Amino acid sequence: MQTLTVDLGDRSYPIHIGTGLLERADLILPHLKQKRVAVVTNTTVAPLYLERLTATLKDAGVEVLAIVLPDGEAYKNWETLNRIFDALLSNRAERKTTLIALGGGVIGDLTGFAAASYQRGVPFIQVPTTLLAQVDSSVGGKTGINHPLGKNMIGAFYQPQVVLADTGTLATLPDRELSAGLAEVIKYGLIRDLPFLEWLEANMDRLVARDAEALAYAIRRSCENKAEVVAADEREAGQRALLNLGHTFGHAIEAGMGYGVWLHGEGVAAGTVLAADLSRRMGNIDGADVERVVTLFKRAKLPTVAPDLGADAYLGYMGVDKKVEGGKIRFVLFRRLGACYVGADAPAELLRQTLTEATGPAAP
Amino acid sequence: MQTLTVDLGDRSYPIHIGTGLLERADLILPHLKQKRVAVVTNTTVAPLYLERLTATLKDAGVEVLAIVLPDGEAYKNWETLNRIFDALLSNRAERKTTLIALGGGVIGDLTGFAAASYQRGVPFIQVPTTLLAQVDSSVGGKTGINHPLGKNMIGAFYQPQVVLADTGTLATLPDRELSAGLAEVIKYGLIRDLPFLEWLEANMDRLVARDAEALAYAIRRSCENKAEVVAADEREAGQRALLNLGHTFGHAIEAGMGYGVWLHGEGVAAGTVLAADLSRRMGNIDGADVERVVTLFKRAKLPTVAPDLGADAYLGYMGVDKKVEGGKIRFVLFRRLGACYVGADAPAELLRQTLTEATGPAAP
Repeated sequence: MQTLTVDLGDRSYPIHIGTGLLERADLILPHLKQKRVAVVTNTTVAPLYLERLTATLKDAGVEVLAIVLPDGEAYKNWETLNRIFDALLSNRAERKTTLIALGGGVIGDLTGFAAASYQRGVPFIQVPTTLLAQVDSSVGGKTGINHPLGKNMIGAFYQPQVVLADTGTLATLPDRELSAGLAEVIKYGLIRDLPFLEWLEANMDRLVARDAEALAYAIRRSCENKAEVVAADEREAGQRALLNLGHTFGHAIEAGMGYGVWLHGEGVAAGTVLAADLSRRMGNIDGADVERVVTLFKRAKLPTVAPDLGADAYLGYMGVDKKVEGGKIRFVLFRRLGACYVGADAPAELLRQTLTEATGPAAP
Repeated sequence: MQTLTVDLGDRSYPIHIGTGLLERADLILPHLKQKRVAVVTNTTVAPLYLERLTATLKDAGVEVLAIVLPDGEAYKNWETLNRIFDALLSNRAERKTTLIALGGGVIGDLTGFAAASYQRGVPFIQVPTTLLAQVDSSVGGKTGINHPLGKNMIGAFYQPQVVLADTGTLATLPDRELSAGLAEVIKYGLIRDLPFLEWLEANMDRLVARDAEALAYAIRRSCENKAEVVAADEREAGQRALLNLGHTFGHAIEAGMGYGVWLHGEGVAAGTVLAADLSRRMGNIDGADVERVVTLFKRAKLPTVAPDLGADAYLGYMGVDKKVEGGKIRFVLFRRLGACYVGADAPAELLRQTLTEATGPAAP
């Protein structure tokens, strides 16, 4: 097991990475304020890991309430959040009851926002079971739900007490979701870590083949990068926005195709290629750089051509993006590979060219 | 105009108290991050004060989006909150757009929670127009909505940038709501400020007659008391719970009678009498003390007999209260008048006696 710390003063917390963590009550107990928890999970993860985690907790004398939600980004909404509140209130969960998120990014986002809001805040713990959640969404305290007019528009910055990334759970992850997680792994290399990008180019085949050692290294390097960025900018006033490389385009793709059709990581991959294309048109990088990005995503079995929704549809979806300021769209752009920046300097004409010329038939 | 400060480190903020503050753009402008705000109010307050505040802002070059909600505690729920989000998203409100709550406690709670959650947090300003909101709910950062299974169960601790308590707005306040506000004013005297309690006993008739000088003094002393308590305990880990004197019973009354039938302050008044009755049965205070509490509430035109819902119904409603811990109900109890404490030591038998013998026919 390896342990990192996200350094946020009195909201600091450890991330444990390794196999067999679902059996480790000793990693959870020190963080509980009472011997009572609610485990929030979904219908896909529950049959695989709920019993194991519950047994670990019950053997340690902890009372467990299980809340099993439907699976999918389409359920990351108020109705599902309210099912958590209904269960907590019906079972008289208290201010010291800890919520445990067992699942992927959607479960983590829903559970985190429920924890932030239930009785104005109760403790919570992240137990991510997908690669995407282990390298990204479970670290950094972003929680929330979607609104029909925009993704992740309602939520809170709310940090967990501890994150347990059990790499053993990746064995049951569908190929498509493994790839979606690799999109965020590649992102860390692209935005700020050229040596990691080069390591990924050398080791992508091992990652796709689920080589345990390679995966553990990729998760650790990803969490280290994210922890450094978040520690420097918890509430996204500045450099944290770099983590959104490909996300402005990606969210538009997800919304335009209907939430749940494209996976988040798939949208990020295709969106990152658009960001690279736009950066090339702005003269920051060259065609070979774009090709290098495309090649790595392809080797990770990710889509690299964003759907042609029409430039106006894209602009509409992006207009309500959280990174908008004073009416200008701020993008994460490439200065070079391994060094991105946040700029509102993309000329409207080049943006339209990217949205028209670098998109294609819709297929994730 | 008088100004106090709520001292919360980098979340500190000023409270301005006085007449004509709705015309004072200079008190608002320094707190805006962009010249764009959304004013959230209700159908009762809008015809009285929305135009005045909007004109003040527009004259200062600020773009104003008005969001007018239905009036009443019955609307303090997810559906109404979502109307705020719908309006913000439809109008592309951004992360730097400030939300301004113009109204009473319900508007403040809804707007504050909307501000805490919209895009994971935008700035907000409180402009309370009821006595209750000026002395209590607009100070301290508690925001939230009701759930069918419990009041204020979903929300956030989220501090405003500034509070503007324009005492001129009290001129249009219905008598019943003025009294409801006085319940919270009296509360500060009862829990921690005997000299203020004695001042209230000497000046209650002036307050009920809306003597401007008396009201301004009562608001200032109330805000000072609340600011001191909140500064010492922002997230209600300890002494802040004292502010809930009468609230555990009061919330049960409000829920049991149906939200909106009893005003919050009415529930607090009758609930405080129950807390006094229980404290007397425990031997902490005597019958004359209880009578003194009842007399002051009566002079403020407040109900002093809680409805007889049945002891079991009360216990059911109180069982999901936020102050519950380890299954035991924690009450704010009197040690003596002017000095309350939080205890889980109320014997169940005495509690049942209070709920049975000190309640009566239902009438606010």
